[in-house]
Amino acid sequence: MTQIIQCIPNFSEGRNPGVIRSLVTAAQSVPGVILADYSSDASHNRTVITLLGGPEGIKTAVLALAKCARNQINMNLHQGEHPRIGAVDVIPFVPIKGITMEECVNLSKEVGKEISSELQIPVYLYEESAADTSRRNLADVRRGQYEGLAKKMAQWPPDYGNIPHPTAGAVAVGARRPLIAFNVNLSTSDISIAKKIAKKVRESSGGLKYCKAIGIMLKEKNSAQVSMNLTHYETTSIYTAVELIKSEAAKHGVAIVDTELIGIAPAKALLDCAIQYLQLKDFDYRQVLENHIGG
Amino acid sequence: MTQIIQCIPNFSEGRNPGVIRSLVTAAQSVPGVILADYSSDASHNRTVITLLGGPEGIKTAVLALAKCARNQINMNLHQGEHPRIGAVDVIPFVPIKGITMEECVNLSKEVGKEISSELQIPVYLYEESAADTSRRNLADVRRGQYEGLAKKMAQWPPDYGNIPHPTAGAVAVGARRPLIAFNVNLSTSDISIAKKIAKKVRESSGGLKYCKAIGIMLKEKNSAQVSMNLTHYETTSIYTAVELIKSEAAKHGVAIVDTELIGIAPAKALLDCAIQYLQLKDFDYRQVLENHIGG
Repeated sequence: MTQIIQCIPNFSEGRNPGVIRSLVTAAQSVPGVILADYSSDASHNRTVITLLGGPEGIKTAVLALAKCARNQINMNLHQGEHPRIGAVDVIPFVPIKGITMEECVNLSKEVGKEISSELQIPVYLYEESAADTSRRNLADVRRGQYEGLAKKMAQWPPDYGNIPHPTAGAVAVGARRPLIAFNVNLSTSDISIAKKIAKKVRESSGGLKYCKAIGIMLKEKNSAQVSMNLTHYETTSIYTAVELIKSEAAKHGVAIVDTELIGIAPAKALLDCAIQYLQLKDFDYRQVLENHIGG
Repeated sequence: MTQIIQCIPNFSEGRNPGVIRSLVTAAQSVPGVILADYSSDASHNRTVITLLGGPEGIKTAVLALAKCARNQINMNLHQGEHPRIGAVDVIPFVPIKGITMEECVNLSKEVGKEISSELQIPVYLYEESAADTSRRNLADVRRGQYEGLAKKMAQWPPDYGNIPHPTAGAVAVGARRPLIAFNVNLSTSDISIAKKIAKKVRESSGGLKYCKAIGIMLKEKNSAQVSMNLTHYETTSIYTAVELIKSEAAKHGVAIVDTELIGIAPAKALLDCAIQYLQLKDFDYRQVLENHIGG
């Protein structure tokens, strides 16, 4: 492969094994496109799929996935802890190798147009693909969620399409920089503590730069979670975010039970954590064997 | 490269920049052989070079290095904290890719014979290359050090050669499994504490399996160090060793100042530390981007 894009479509179904299986099958349907990872969470009621491949293959695969989600997921019946606007909720395109952000923006627009014309799902372009800066932030695009879509579209029309799909809602499509989706599970069932910690760590309320965070309740585990996106791990590392959560949680007498990486991450994002926790000095990435010989 | 061997010759010079530069130049003299890493330590008075390459290239490079060390290092003037028997002190060969341990054993014997015949340095074969199990352990080969070589050879003759080289001593040569050389620097100048901790963590005195450890004094930093070899990181990880050292040190009111990885390590050895420190659950190595697309 000369050009590699990472595409991480998120779907509003994390409970029904039959639907999840259909999505995984669709994700594996295009030769040359790698299903690098998928994970489903019942509380979030959400499945996140990570694809790697060239522009043409990724386009074919993600359109097949969007169609599968539209046909099998009914948003009128959907409940889950994670904010969402549609059956296929968000489709990010991330340039990995041999491809520019601009090419990913163009691809996202092609895919968005087809989703609107072929599947009758309206599309909001976000992040690098957004028409203007007020539409960049995914949290703003999702505000009001599926239930508020009709009202939202009256004031804030989609980029493609104009009325919510009756069962599939709408979708955010866009090119963006890589991010790390990382969840921290707490030893408490008090969601207000997770919300307070999220507020402390996220950039928008004065916390860590390049950190987005929300507090979520994992009902089946009776446990509160801080769910994060780290949009520039070189500046704010997983280590920094987790350690801040740990110290904020301790103020409430709460500990970290475990953590989850959703989707994939560059090796460096995890190696940096090892280096910081081990207090490793003068480390050089050339000291990693695979950097010389390939995986 | 179809076959890759890692070779990590250790030299008894870590202070004189001219000699170190000569060694590095020799390490870079063979096309196709990669100088993956080198590091010198003044207290250890030692330089460790990591080469990667095919059997022929590695043989040529390591013979050039041994000759360089023989010509430039006088063991009669050598002082250092780390046990040693010669100018080029030990030459391990580690099979990495497309090559068996047996082939590395054969290569080590070829190199050993040439070092003895061409450079007049006697050779002890150790680890997988040892003639019998009593000669496997490098610590036993080194016992008595450079200063005790003549006496040692009378009782325990080398595999090649029979008298110590008058300035270069002897060398241990052998094939072995990969190991991780890892040092932990302590917030104390009391070497007895480092020695006590080393005794607690090393396998030979009832500590962690696959862990070798000694206490060393870093004179120029006035700081004590636990210097380790982890010979099976999948069983005893860097994390486990560092955390045990941390808790043993705490009993003496001592903390870890920082740590050092000497030479190279497989990515997995460091990723495992990140996973354990972050309490990452359900992690799959397929979640590392580079495992799909190459470095």
